[in-house]
Amino acid sequence: MISESRIKVRYVETDRMGIVYHANYLVWFEIARSEFLEKLGFPYADMERAGYMSPVVDVQLAYGTPLTYGDTAIVRTRVTKLTQVKTEYAYEVYKEGQQVGVDKPCCTGRTTHCLVDGETFKPLSQKRAMPDLYAAYQEAVEAE
Amino acid sequence: MISESRIKVRYVETDRMGIVYHANYLVWFEIARSEFLEKLGFPYADMERAGYMSPVVDVQLAYGTPLTYGDTAIVRTRVTKLTQVKTEYAYEVYKEGQQVGVDKPCCTGRTTHCLVDGETFKPLSQKRAMPDLYAAYQEAVEAE
Amino acid sequence: MISESRIKVRYVETDRMGIVYHANYLVWFEIARSEFLEKLGFPYADMERAGYMSPVVDVQLAYGTPLTYGDTAIVRTRVTKLTQVKTEYAYEVYKEGQQVGVDKPCCTGRTTHCLVDGETFKPLSQKRAMPDLYAAYQEAVEAE
Amino acid sequence: MISESRIKVRYVETDRMGIVYHANYLVWFEIARSEFLEKLGFPYADMERAGYMSPVVDVQLAYGTPLTYGDTAIVRTRVTKLTQVKTEYAYEVYKEGQQVGVDKPCCTGRTTHCLVDGETFKPLSQKRAMPDLYAAYQEAVEAE
Repeated sequence: MISESRIKVRYVETDRMGIVYHANYLVWFEIARSEFLEKLGFPYADMERAGYMSPVVDVQLAYGTPLTYGDTAIVRTRVTKLTQVKTEYAYEVYKEGQQVGVDKPCCTGRTTHCLVDGETFKPLSQKRAMPDLYAAYQEAVEAE
Repeated sequence: MISESRIKVRYVETDRMGIVYHANYLVWFEIARSEFLEKLGFPYADMERAGYMSPVVDVQLAYGTPLTYGDTAIVRTRVTKLTQVKTEYAYEVYKEGQQVGVDKPCCTGRTTHCLVDGETFKPLSQKRAMPDLYAAYQEAVEAE
Repeated sequence: MISESRIKVRYVETDRMGIVYHANYLVWFEIARSEFLEKLGFPYADMERAGYMSPVVDVQLAYGTPLTYGDTAIVRTRVTKLTQVKTEYAYEVYKEGQQVGVDKPCCTGRTTHCLVDGETFKPLSQKRAMPDLYAAYQEAVEAE
Repeated sequence: MISESRIKVRYVETDRMGIVYHANYLVWFEIARSEFLEKLGFPYADMERAGYMSPVVDVQLAYGTPLTYGDTAIVRTRVTKLTQVKTEYAYEVYKEGQQVGVDKPCCTGRTTHCLVDGETFKPLSQKRAMPDLYAAYQEAVEAE
């Protein structure tokens, strides 16, 4: 499963280089992940209501051609690895108008997440805590 | 009581106009308020630990000469009004190097806050809930 | 003319009160304004390419019921005043699901903008510099 | 050379998990880098005035114990690699009160930067474009 998110660049997201400030790609990844989980049938807001949170454990980012205000980002998101305690997401950011699979993405990234108890922040087995989500993730994984 | 906060402009705070994005002045006001409360002897983090929160109720802002990366903002903060349920703060932002009282501030603003219960968001009388803070505020008020 | 923008709350926009951080409403206003100008036929990115910028001169905000992650904001935007040198916008933020005109908005605000030269930041007459935009604004003004 | 930056957590930097939103560590790295360059004698604002920019090419981040409002971050910054076209920085974030070298950092990261022409975004040899900065970097490199 590959989820596509369409994000119009906000003016506030640019800096005085004239381009999108690099940390904002992480915010776009969060939006893309949020939409991925919605399509999977497990909205993140519901996960939190059920008492779980899914903090970021590590991040990798590589930047190419910058985007700016007036552009629209297309973020392609998939789950690339799954263990009982961690989920890895990969992202490719294109500028709307680019050809996926032909043009080089403007940015690529990867984030790893664990599942924790919303009160204690203690890490949990996602297989045990959220078996349905775990099964859905298993279906959705796209090996590279 | 007038509290002065020194804030170096962050690169992320600029936008592609080359200047500080207008919403960031509200963030600086928050930092200035936070330091004001610390000097007053009531750090905001302690207030939250005690079960209270102090959300913003309304805001006014007027912008003059913009600041940018490389500049340092001096935010002069005081409490201008106090009732049992509301506190009004006023702010003047100068660029380091300007002369307070001689030069025109780069930005002026005002925020009003209420006190609420941290669980229920129900508004509280600050005089009853935090009598010591209320008394300190009374001492600190600077009429205009 | 009243323009409606639909904005899903981003996780990053919340703070540890559990609600949307107050400065982010100004960011939403910017997005709403951007969409207003697009509908009016004058995308802001084009204005900048033509050598103009439209910085914020002053701001007013009043907050009611807070929004949080999982919510979608509906921002209703119109131009309320127009002079040769200034344009005033007014905004009402509803939570999706609320009834416009029946329910109380979660936040209301107002921003005033001038038009400046993109190089020198010198204020311009918008009637003279961008007569077509000025005429379109005149058509669009909604008195209160 | 190791540069230490002291950054008080801002309320806006927290999210509704109650902790600092993960993308903000990249903002702290930028501040830390900015102070590193100042100590090195090459303030970034001067570099921009001279017609250069130094965009981020890639990023790595690993998160441990989260920080929140009320905490102060200590960011230890050094240059770990230098080529004619790229500079790699490494960062360790401690919570004030922790013991450097004894306690585990709350976050570690790495960013790589190139040097580009401020007008054309064309990559430059930093050795040729800014020989003094290059020499200072060479002195400052801390192998791992």
